[in-house]
Amino acid sequence: MSAVESVRWSSDGAAVDIIDQRHLPGTLLRRELRNADELCDAIRTLAVRGAPAIGVAGAMGLVVALAAHVEEERERFLTSADELGRRIARVRPTAVNLSWAIARMLRVAHGTEGDPRAVLGALRGEATAILEEDREMCRRIGEHGVGLLTDGARVLTHCNAGALATAGIGTALAPVYLAAERGRRVAVFADETRPLMQGSRLTAWELGQAGIDVTVLADNMAASLMREGRVDLVIVGADRIAANGDVANKIGTYPLALAARHHGVPFYVAAPWSTVDPATATGDAIEIEHRAADELGLGFASPVSPRDAAVYNPAFDVTPASLVTAFVTDRGIVRPVYRFDLERHAGASAG
Amino acid sequence: MSAVESVRWSSDGAAVDIIDQRHLPGTLLRRELRNADELCDAIRTLAVRGAPAIGVAGAMGLVVALAAHVEEERERFLTSADELGRRIARVRPTAVNLSWAIARMLRVAHGTEGDPRAVLGALRGEATAILEEDREMCRRIGEHGVGLLTDGARVLTHCNAGALATAGIGTALAPVYLAAERGRRVAVFADETRPLMQGSRLTAWELGQAGIDVTVLADNMAASLMREGRVDLVIVGADRIAANGDVANKIGTYPLALAARHHGVPFYVAAPWSTVDPATATGDAIEIEHRAADELGLGFASPVSPRDAAVYNPAFDVTPASLVTAFVTDRGIVRPVYRFDLERHAGASAG
Repeated sequence: MSAVESVRWSSDGAAVDIIDQRHLPGTLLRRELRNADELCDAIRTLAVRGAPAIGVAGAMGLVVALAAHVEEERERFLTSADELGRRIARVRPTAVNLSWAIARMLRVAHGTEGDPRAVLGALRGEATAILEEDREMCRRIGEHGVGLLTDGARVLTHCNAGALATAGIGTALAPVYLAAERGRRVAVFADETRPLMQGSRLTAWELGQAGIDVTVLADNMAASLMREGRVDLVIVGADRIAANGDVANKIGTYPLALAARHHGVPFYVAAPWSTVDPATATGDAIEIEHRAADELGLGFASPVSPRDAAVYNPAFDVTPASLVTAFVTDRGIVRPVYRFDLERHAGASAG
Repeated sequence: MSAVESVRWSSDGAAVDIIDQRHLPGTLLRRELRNADELCDAIRTLAVRGAPAIGVAGAMGLVVALAAHVEEERERFLTSADELGRRIARVRPTAVNLSWAIARMLRVAHGTEGDPRAVLGALRGEATAILEEDREMCRRIGEHGVGLLTDGARVLTHCNAGALATAGIGTALAPVYLAAERGRRVAVFADETRPLMQGSRLTAWELGQAGIDVTVLADNMAASLMREGRVDLVIVGADRIAANGDVANKIGTYPLALAARHHGVPFYVAAPWSTVDPATATGDAIEIEHRAADELGLGFASPVSPRDAAVYNPAFDVTPASLVTAFVTDRGIVRPVYRFDLERHAGASAG
C-alpha cells in the first residue's frame, strides 16, 4: 500500500537509482545512473520525468558525475562542477525545477571551503536535502488534502502527478496515497491523457503497484462519468499557477474543469507553493508549448495501460437537449423547443 | 473537391464495391463483395461501417448473394432470401439501419410476382432505391445546413459522420461538403475520437481526399481551441435522438457540447429525421454500450491519422481560476479569493 520510489540513491550511494519510465506499464525496470552521460540520457529520453523528479535526479546526478573529478585541484573541480551543471540543466531547458536544483547545488559548491572531497561531501548532503524536501513537500500536500477524501471517495485525475513525477508520493496523488495509508477506501479514475498516455501508462500503473483501486478511461469519457454521478472530486496537478489562480496544466485539464463545474463536482489543484508564479498575472500570459504532429499521427506499438487495469469504456454518451443549438435534418433545421412532430414541424416551417 | 463513394455497385453490377476502411488512413483499397460470405465478413470486421452505409451495403449485398440462387424454384428462392437476410442482419444486431433495410428488401421479395429472375430484378431496384435515398438524405441535410457555414467558417466535428459512414456525403459533414462545393472557404477541426480514432483515421482522411482543409486534434484539446476563439461552430452526427432532443452519439460528444456552451459556440446535431426515436422520452432511457478493455489498453501498430494531416497539439491548457474549487498546496488549502501572499495566507489559516 505504499508508493513506488521513482528516484533514490543506489545502495552503494554511487549512482542515482531510477525507475525507467519508458518501460512502463509493461516492465518495472530500475536503472542506476553512474555518470553524466547516463544521467543526461535518462532525462532526455524521459526515462525519468515529472518536474520535481527531474530536479531531484539532476541534483543527485551532479554529485554522481562529479565523483570522477574528485582528484582534480579545487579550482579545476569547481569548473568541472559548473560545466557539468550547465550540461545537465541544458537537457530540458524549460524544466524550471532542473535549473533551480542545479543552481542551488552550484551555490553550495562555490560556498563550501576545503578540498574537492569536502565540497563533494557538501554537495551530496545538499542533493539529499533536495530529495528529502521534495518528499516532505509531497507529504505535506497529502496531509493538507487528505481531508477532502472521505471513506469511499471516488477521485478523477488527469496525467501523472504522482510518485513517478516526484521523489515522494506525488502532488495530485498525495492525498490519495495518504487516504489509503489511513485505511480509507478510495477509488481513482485515471484519464489516459492523450497524446502521451501518462494517465494510463503511469498513473494507473503506480496506483496498481500500491494496491489502490484504479480505472482507466479515455479523456473524452470523464464528462459522462460525472453525469452518471460516479465522481466525487477531481484532483489534478499544475505546471504553473498564475497570480490570479489560473492554472496551466497538461492539455485536457480545462475540459475536466468545465465538466466538473457543470456537474457540481469539486475541482482541486494540488501543487507545491513554488508552482505559483507571482510574475504571471493571469493564464493568458502563459505561453503554451505545441508539440510534434507525430504524437497524434503515429500509433503505439506497445500496450498503453497495465494489462489488468479496470477500464470504463462506453461507446456513446448523451448530450442533453439544452446544450444543442439546433438539429440539422433532411427535413429542415429544428430549433428549440424541439418538436419531433412531423405535422406541426411541416406546418411551422412551410416555405 | 467531391466526397469519396464508400458504397456503390461494381461496374458489372454483380458486386457491392466498398472502400475497405480497415486500411485507412494509410491505403485506399476498394473491395468488391461478390457473395454472402464476403459481405458478412466486411460488415463484421468494420471494413464497411457507419449505420447508413451498413444498411445500404446490406440491401445491395442481399441482391448479390441471391444471384447464386436464381435457378431455384420461387418458393425455395424466397426461403433463401429469408435465410440470407436473417444471416446478414445478425452480423450487427444493434445496427437498426441494417435490420430495417433487410426487412424492407424481404417485403419487396415476397410482394413481387413472378419467377426468381423477376423478384431479383425488383430487389436490385429496391436496393438501388435505398442507395439513392441515402444519398438524397445526405444532400438534403447538407442543403439545410449549408447556410450555417459562412465563407471562412471553422467547424469542429467529432468521430466520422461523413461520406465513409453513408452512401452519400455524410450527415455532419454534408454541410461542409456543400459549402466547399459552392466555393466557400471552410476549415474543419477533426477530433481524433478515442478509442477507435474514427476522427483522425477517417474524417481527416476523407476531407483530405476532397481537398478540404482539415486539422486533427486529440479530443481533450477541443476546449482549448474554443477558448482561443478558433471554432465558429460544432457539427456532430447522432446515433439516436430522444423525443425531447437529448442526443446519443459517439463518446466525447457531450464534453464538446459543454465546452461549446461555455464559449458561446453553436453546437449543431446533423442527422436524418429517422434518427429521432419517439419511443424514447429522454436520453436517460438510452442504454449505452460499453466496449472491450483492450480498446483502451492496447496500442496501435499503424499510423492513426493521414501522414500529411495538419495537427493542433498543445501540451498544456489553461484552466481559469473561476473553475477551481481550491488549491491544495504544501502550505495548506487555498480557497477563493486566491491570495498567493504568504503573510496574509499564513495569518488567515493559522492553526
